[in-house]
Amino acid sequence: MSATRMQMLSSRSVRLLSRGRNEMLAGRSGAQRPGGDPRTRSLTCPPLSSSSSPGRALSSLSATRRGLPKEKMSENGIMSRAKVLTIDTMNPTVKKVEYAVRGPIVQRAVELERELSEGMKKPFAEVIRANIGDAHAMGQQPITFFRQVLALCSYPELLSDSTFPEDTKSRACRILQSCGGNSMGSYSASQGIDSVRQDVASYIVRRDGGVPCDPNNIYLTTGASDGIMTMLKLLVCGEGTTRTGVMIPIPQYPLYSAALAELGAVQINYFLNEEKCWSLDITELQRAVNEARQHCNPRALCIINPGNPTGQVQSRQCIEDVIRFAAKERLFLMADEVYQDNVYAEGCQFHSFKKVLFEMEPEYAETVELASFHSTSKCYMGECGFRGGYMEIINMDDEVKDQLTKLLSVRLCPPVPGQALMDLVVNPPQPGEPSYDTFIKERTATLSALAEKAKLTEQVLNTVQGISCNPVQGAMYSFPRITIPEKAIKEATEKGQQPDMFYCMKMLEETGICLVPGSGFGQKDGTYHFRMTILPPTDKLKILLNKVKEFHQRFIQQYS
Amino acid sequence: MSATRMQMLSSRSVRLLSRGRNEMLAGRSGAQRPGGDPRTRSLTCPPLSSSSSPGRALSSLSATRRGLPKEKMSENGIMSRAKVLTIDTMNPTVKKVEYAVRGPIVQRAVELERELSEGMKKPFAEVIRANIGDAHAMGQQPITFFRQVLALCSYPELLSDSTFPEDTKSRACRILQSCGGNSMGSYSASQGIDSVRQDVASYIVRRDGGVPCDPNNIYLTTGASDGIMTMLKLLVCGEGTTRTGVMIPIPQYPLYSAALAELGAVQINYFLNEEKCWSLDITELQRAVNEARQHCNPRALCIINPGNPTGQVQSRQCIEDVIRFAAKERLFLMADEVYQDNVYAEGCQFHSFKKVLFEMEPEYAETVELASFHSTSKCYMGECGFRGGYMEIINMDDEVKDQLTKLLSVRLCPPVPGQALMDLVVNPPQPGEPSYDTFIKERTATLSALAEKAKLTEQVLNTVQGISCNPVQGAMYSFPRITIPEKAIKEATEKGQQPDMFYCMKMLEETGICLVPGSGFGQKDGTYHFRMTILPPTDKLKILLNKVKEFHQRFIQQYS
Repeated sequence: MSATRMQMLSSRSVRLLSRGRNEMLAGRSGAQRPGGDPRTRSLTCPPLSSSSSPGRALSSLSATRRGLPKEKMSENGIMSRAKVLTIDTMNPTVKKVEYAVRGPIVQRAVELERELSEGMKKPFAEVIRANIGDAHAMGQQPITFFRQVLALCSYPELLSDSTFPEDTKSRACRILQSCGGNSMGSYSASQGIDSVRQDVASYIVRRDGGVPCDPNNIYLTTGASDGIMTMLKLLVCGEGTTRTGVMIPIPQYPLYSAALAELGAVQINYFLNEEKCWSLDITELQRAVNEARQHCNPRALCIINPGNPTGQVQSRQCIEDVIRFAAKERLFLMADEVYQDNVYAEGCQFHSFKKVLFEMEPEYAETVELASFHSTSKCYMGECGFRGGYMEIINMDDEVKDQLTKLLSVRLCPPVPGQALMDLVVNPPQPGEPSYDTFIKERTATLSALAEKAKLTEQVLNTVQGISCNPVQGAMYSFPRITIPEKAIKEATEKGQQPDMFYCMKMLEETGICLVPGSGFGQKDGTYHFRMTILPPTDKLKILLNKVKEFHQRFIQQYS
Repeated sequence: MSATRMQMLSSRSVRLLSRGRNEMLAGRSGAQRPGGDPRTRSLTCPPLSSSSSPGRALSSLSATRRGLPKEKMSENGIMSRAKVLTIDTMNPTVKKVEYAVRGPIVQRAVELERELSEGMKKPFAEVIRANIGDAHAMGQQPITFFRQVLALCSYPELLSDSTFPEDTKSRACRILQSCGGNSMGSYSASQGIDSVRQDVASYIVRRDGGVPCDPNNIYLTTGASDGIMTMLKLLVCGEGTTRTGVMIPIPQYPLYSAALAELGAVQINYFLNEEKCWSLDITELQRAVNEARQHCNPRALCIINPGNPTGQVQSRQCIEDVIRFAAKERLFLMADEVYQDNVYAEGCQFHSFKKVLFEMEPEYAETVELASFHSTSKCYMGECGFRGGYMEIINMDDEVKDQLTKLLSVRLCPPVPGQALMDLVVNPPQPGEPSYDTFIKERTATLSALAEKAKLTEQVLNTVQGISCNPVQGAMYSFPRITIPEKAIKEATEKGQQPDMFYCMKMLEETGICLVPGSGFGQKDGTYHFRMTILPPTDKLKILLNKVKEFHQRFIQQYS
């Protein structure tokens, strides 16, 4: 909490805060902990020759001045030397990057939390962070088996502890034996630990009912975001009208727009059909690519299934149609499937793009290039902090694969604890193993709670006049459409705010509920939405939904 | 090991290998583990409408064909459809990236390990990986305290285990209390966990003898590489002669050249003075920047201290001169200080750029922009796999800091276990705490062993005619200069190899020792070097050094 707090403060207040802390730290360190490693302190160092002018004596003045506020310093003109790196001289593509999930509304939420903690009076007792899919932060408990194995891998002396089940120990040993020096502290291969990639491959084979999977096509990543970013990086080239264009759904998860902005690629929007439960229409894909071909070179098509923020689950037929479209239009397919276990709606089922592709005619199965992404952060485990993930690459050119491996090698390897966790996710306890029953109990409890909360959210929101919410078939979010009266739109525009940002900010100030406005994900012009996670515990979620309901009714009254 | 093995195989052999594994996996999954989550399996899914042409029946043919080798498929022309992503149509900047530390010589080392494991006869029993600073892989043991706390954070139920010392528990609680939901599975703030950044700040204050440090200037990173890459990303702009140029030492750690290639920035080489123990001469910096100004816009100066691969430790005077130079030439300073605890030579001492800068006159202390990088991967802990690190940003423009935080937020956060580990490194057991004595014993043992091995390496290598090795004052590598006879240079040239690559490849084939040729780090034309880590256990290192000695003598004989 307070980490975010400090980070989000305005630069001004940050400077004020920090000066105070400086003195505190300097003081504390002076008193409690005199100076660092005694070995190095005891040494003295004859200056190595350097062919520059002889060094001057230290200005004792400077040392004392360090405490003075910068404002003071600036008066004597010292601050007047221009910075090398300014907003005007920095990388322009970075400036274009936006990421609403941690945008201004979250900064305000953090300020409100601080104000509450400082005893300031508010119309609410706590801020509820319904803006990000952070399951453990919302109170979800880790899977016992996963954490036991991670503890064993971190401190192998525990392998002799009789309280740990045998299967946690055998898993830990298998992981450690794949690590250099049997330690998670060693670098792994850049592509990821061999045995983990083999387990991922076996998992995919099981998941897809026997469709083969080659461990050499598996790349472990630092969360799914890292894999998606890396694949997009490979795809970007050309200038002007030949610049790489990438098709992304609208509404989208803003990692995509952020990555494309950073890479200077062209974002090609295709709109999901809200009237048809956020379904994907091939005619819309066709419209989008046709228009894009006039100003860029469309080379990739990104799909998020189950949908984030929209929660739809694609039918097998729809996936097959998308693959045919990608083949026809010569597009590299990127399938974001991090919510593959988060399917709740009756009659819905997760179909992987890989499985559907491999079951199609060879002219597709053998040629359509596909990257599929998974993560340890979502599903029933929600282990976001470990930054584990993998991507599977299908039909990729061998020379490009070599380039991909080379590119990954510069970063050395994904975090090994995240790789270990990914291994456990794809190779959980099996029937007959001591941890099996507990694992199934924990996983089922989490997934059925999520299914219940998905239904609950849809039902309650649809009782509110001016809010309409599609079924949350999967993933972890509702993305309801909201009516915003003309008078509110006018007031927002005067404030230079998007109407749904204005709406969400007002809700935050009045209720303490932190949502993300639809404008952060993209939406059809003239429509307004917000994204709300379904992650809070059921009792808390009920309160939250009623607060949203009451707020919306007040809001409509106020602006009608 | 075998992870790297598989990854490094040639595309051809990878294809062959993988086909076999496919069938194995498909078979295994069919037999042992019938399919995945029963809940989702039990559901059936009515296709969501999609406005495309009606889907065709699956070609049962395709399913059976999946087993056939691709070569077969290609005969009927199905493979003839060109790939979307090929070596010719991929991101050209990625193609320019090179990273010798995991380059062709390592790929060959991996093949040799496989050949050995398959019983093939070699003039050596094992491959010794002296190419990368991977301490645990070389048998270095983790610090007990660090791993105990990480185990507690992974599986907090252990907090009731009486065998864990009290200070490990208090540290674990402090870390967990800073995590959302008290779980390392939650996302942290993008800048890193607040309490960890405060501990990093306190550490820096102690390290630098009371010079203040603002936690708001600390950004936790995914290893130091991530921080360096991010800072360079902010700095890159302009085109043609206004394109950002970045000064890096030659020899350098190839992350820098790789990052600059990926970002399309201009690499400005300044040469370290091998005759003066790889010291940094300001006159050489001046030459490099003057020449560079004619074709690009020099904006940043990268320093690696202690040096990688060169092992020199900069004097306080030299650092002060560098800072004056950076101020005069208006360069953003990037100080790679990941080896700050790895200082061995009598009379040498680590001085941080931050400390020296803050002790200089305000015209420098208040204006020179500096980013300093540290990591959990080196020093006495060598925890590479956790990908922990931080950067401290000094005198950075506030708007740019906001942009930096925004950019980091897209990747959500650095791995939390790595953040926790960084916290322990900067806040180790204190005198009086139960873990203190063991911690000091372990740290001292590792650092004195490294000091001994640094001396040993220098001494033995300098007994060999045709090898001259500067003192390994710090870091983890020797970078000796080697004489390569004309005849060998000729043979290498005919093979299209760099002479030192030819030399290292030959050594690998004959002795099993894996080194990195100097050409992978950069060196003065006509000079040849190799980088060798000093990490193997002393007894093993002695054998290794003697093998190098014998090889070099044979090599000289053969080519004279």
